[in-house]
Amino acid sequence: MIKPHDIMKECVQLALLGKGYTKTNPIVGAIIVKDGKIIGRGYHEEYGKSHAEINAMNDAVEPLEGADLYVTLEPCSIHGKTPPCVDAIIENKIKRVFIGVVDPNPKIAGQGIIKLIEAGVEVFVGFDEELCASIIEDFTKGVLNQEPYYTLKLAQSLDGKIATKTGDSKWITSESSRVYVHYIRSVSDAILVGVNTVNRDNPRLDVRLIKAEVNPYKVVLDPFFEIDTNSFLCKNYSNKLILFVKDIKSKEKYDKLISEGVEIVKDESIGELFDLNFISKYLYSKNILNVLIEGGSETAGRFIDAGKVDKVLFFIAPKIIGGRDAVSSIKGDGVEKIQDAIEVKMAEVKHFDNDILISGKIKDYTEYVIKLTDKVRNRCLLGL
Amino acid sequence: MIKPHDIMKECVQLALLGKGYTKTNPIVGAIIVKDGKIIGRGYHEEYGKSHAEINAMNDAVEPLEGADLYVTLEPCSIHGKTPPCVDAIIENKIKRVFIGVVDPNPKIAGQGIIKLIEAGVEVFVGFDEELCASIIEDFTKGVLNQEPYYTLKLAQSLDGKIATKTGDSKWITSESSRVYVHYIRSVSDAILVGVNTVNRDNPRLDVRLIKAEVNPYKVVLDPFFEIDTNSFLCKNYSNKLILFVKDIKSKEKYDKLISEGVEIVKDESIGELFDLNFISKYLYSKNILNVLIEGGSETAGRFIDAGKVDKVLFFIAPKIIGGRDAVSSIKGDGVEKIQDAIEVKMAEVKHFDNDILISGKIKDYTEYVIKLTDKVRNRCLLGL
Repeated sequence: MIKPHDIMKECVQLALLGKGYTKTNPIVGAIIVKDGKIIGRGYHEEYGKSHAEINAMNDAVEPLEGADLYVTLEPCSIHGKTPPCVDAIIENKIKRVFIGVVDPNPKIAGQGIIKLIEAGVEVFVGFDEELCASIIEDFTKGVLNQEPYYTLKLAQSLDGKIATKTGDSKWITSESSRVYVHYIRSVSDAILVGVNTVNRDNPRLDVRLIKAEVNPYKVVLDPFFEIDTNSFLCKNYSNKLILFVKDIKSKEKYDKLISEGVEIVKDESIGELFDLNFISKYLYSKNILNVLIEGGSETAGRFIDAGKVDKVLFFIAPKIIGGRDAVSSIKGDGVEKIQDAIEVKMAEVKHFDNDILISGKIKDYTEYVIKLTDKVRNRCLLGL
Repeated sequence: MIKPHDIMKECVQLALLGKGYTKTNPIVGAIIVKDGKIIGRGYHEEYGKSHAEINAMNDAVEPLEGADLYVTLEPCSIHGKTPPCVDAIIENKIKRVFIGVVDPNPKIAGQGIIKLIEAGVEVFVGFDEELCASIIEDFTKGVLNQEPYYTLKLAQSLDGKIATKTGDSKWITSESSRVYVHYIRSVSDAILVGVNTVNRDNPRLDVRLIKAEVNPYKVVLDPFFEIDTNSFLCKNYSNKLILFVKDIKSKEKYDKLISEGVEIVKDESIGELFDLNFISKYLYSKNILNVLIEGGSETAGRFIDAGKVDKVLFFIAPKIIGGRDAVSSIKGDGVEKIQDAIEVKMAEVKHFDNDILISGKIKDYTEYVIKLTDKVRNRCLLGL
C-alpha cells in the first residue's frame, strides 16, 4: 500500500538532492504513481535544466495517462529556461496532481494550478505544507526580498569563544563537525567572511573534506582594501572571489587582482560600515541565493545587528577557553536589553563526536508560503 | 524475580535522597532482601544521624537473619557520630553483603569488608561501581584533597554572553532552567559569587522556586571589602554569609557586619588575587563539601584558571546577545592555545523549555574509587 504522505516525504528527499545546484530556482522533487505503484521519480537537478516534474515523467517506465503526480511545489505555468511544466502534465494526461505548496513566485502563485484545473486535471493543493515550504525558504526569501538567505555558522567553545587571547583558533571543533561544515558549504552558493579572517587565518573555505565538485563563491568584506594578495583565496580562487570594498586604496593592487579574475565591488555608501542591503542585492543579482557567513566575530555581529541572519549553526566544542581577552563568537554592537536579544526558534541539537551543534532559525519564510497555499486552496474549493 | 542490578540502582536512588544533607559524610543507600523480596530500605538522611545500613535494617519488616544487604558504599568499621555499621550487620546475622564501592576514607578503605569477612559474612565487593562511585565524587575529592567539590553554573546566550553591553542580565534563561538551578542550589552546601555580582545584581541565591527548607551558605569573594551592606545577602542571610576579604578597609563596616552574624575571613596571601587553596581549605573545615559557583565571569575565570572547577553546567538560552562590549561568560586569564583549552568530559544535553543545558565533568574522582575497589576485591579473592 502506498501512502500519500510517504510519497510526498520521498519527493522532499528527492528535492534535497538538488540543493546547491539550482541557483535562483527552488529545489523541487516529484514522483509519479500509477495503479498503486511508483513508476517515476525526478528532481530539479541543476539551474537551466529540466524541472522535477519533467524528469519524473521522463523517468516513468509505463504510460503516464491516468497517473498521479506528486510534487513538492506548484508546477510552473511560464516559460523560463524550459517550457511550462503544466503543459507537459496536461499533454501527458496525468489524472491527479498532489501539490505540496504554491509557488511564491508572483508570476506563478496559483496560475499553474488554475491552468491545470481548467484543463480538467484534479488538483490537490496543500500537502505536508510545512515540510515542503521549509526546503524552499531561501527561494521564498529571494522572491520576497530579492536578497540571499543568510546562514551564520560559528565554531566555538562552551564559553562562546572562537579564539584564545593570542588569536589561536585551530581547531576548536572536531573533524566530524568540520566535515559537516564542508557539506553545508557545498550546498551554499557563497561563503562570506571578513577580511581579518582572511589575513589572520588564511582559510581555504573549500569543501575538500567531502570531495564535492562544487566550488561556492568566496565573498570577502574588505572595507579598506587590505586583503593579503598572497592569501589562499587570492592565489587559488581568484575567479570565484568577490571582494567588497569601500575604498580602492591602491590602483596597482586593484589592477593586479582584477587581472587575476577577482571581482572587486565598491560600496559607495557613506561611512566605514558596509551597506548590507547593497551587498545583498548585488549577490542576489549574481544568482547567489544561499550565503554561509563564517565570521569573524565582527562580521557575524554586523549581520546580526542588521537583522540579516536567517539561520544560525553553533558548533559547540566541549572545551573552555576562558580569558577576558579571548575572542567572543559574536561581536558587533549587540543589544542593550536582554528582552531585545535575538530569538532563535526551534533550536535543534545534533551531535558530532563530542561536539554539539545547536541550530535554529531567526527568520521564518514558511509562513508566507503556507498562507499563500491556503488562499489558493480556498479559491480552488470555491471553484476559482 | 529480583535482579541484583535493579536493587543496586534503587539503592543509588535512595542515596540521592540524602544529597544536600550529609555534609562531609558520603550519601549512601541500602536495601535488605530476603527470600527474593525487598524487606527494608534506608539511606543516610542527615549528617550525624544513623547510616543507610542501620536505617534499612530498622525498616525491615521481617527477621534479618539470613538476609542479603545491598549497599552503595562499604559499611563503616569505625566509631564516628554513630557506632560501626559492620557490628550491626554481624549482630543481625546478615548472610551476604553486596557492596557498590569501597569507602575511599583511608580510615575505612577495606577495613569494613575485612571485618565482615572475618565474622563469616559473605561479601561481594564491586557492584555497579561507576554508578556508585559517581554519586560520591564530592566526598572522594574531599577525602583526597580536603577541599570542596566545585560546580560552576552559567546561564548564557548561544553566543556565550551572561549580560548585555549595558550589564542587563535578567533573565537570560527560562523559568524551568531557574527552577532546576534552585534544585542544584538546594543540594549544595554553599553558593559562591564574586562581590561585583552582589553589588550589581543584588541576587538572593536562594531556593525559593522549589520551596525547599535548606539554606546553603552564601560565600562572597570580596577582596577590597566593597560589599553593599544593604544587599539582600547582608540584610537577609547575614548568619549564613561567609565573606572572604584581602583587606579590612573599614573597621566600622567590619564591626557592623560581624555584629549581624556575617563571618568575615581575611586571606593573608600576598597580592590582589585570592589564594583559592586557602579558601578551599577554609570551606572544607566548615564541613562545606559542595560549592556551586554562580559567577560573575571573572570569578568563574579565576576558578577555571586555577584548575579548581570539577563540573560545569552551561544553561544556554536560544538567544543571541552579541556586542563587543557584552559580558562573556568566563573571563579570567584563559588559555593561550586551543590545545590547552580545558576539556569537558562526557558532555550531556538536557532541555528546559527552550533552553539547553550542557553539563559535564572536568575532573573525575570515580576512577580512584573504582581502582581502590578492584584492589580490595582482589585481596578478598586471595583470602585477604
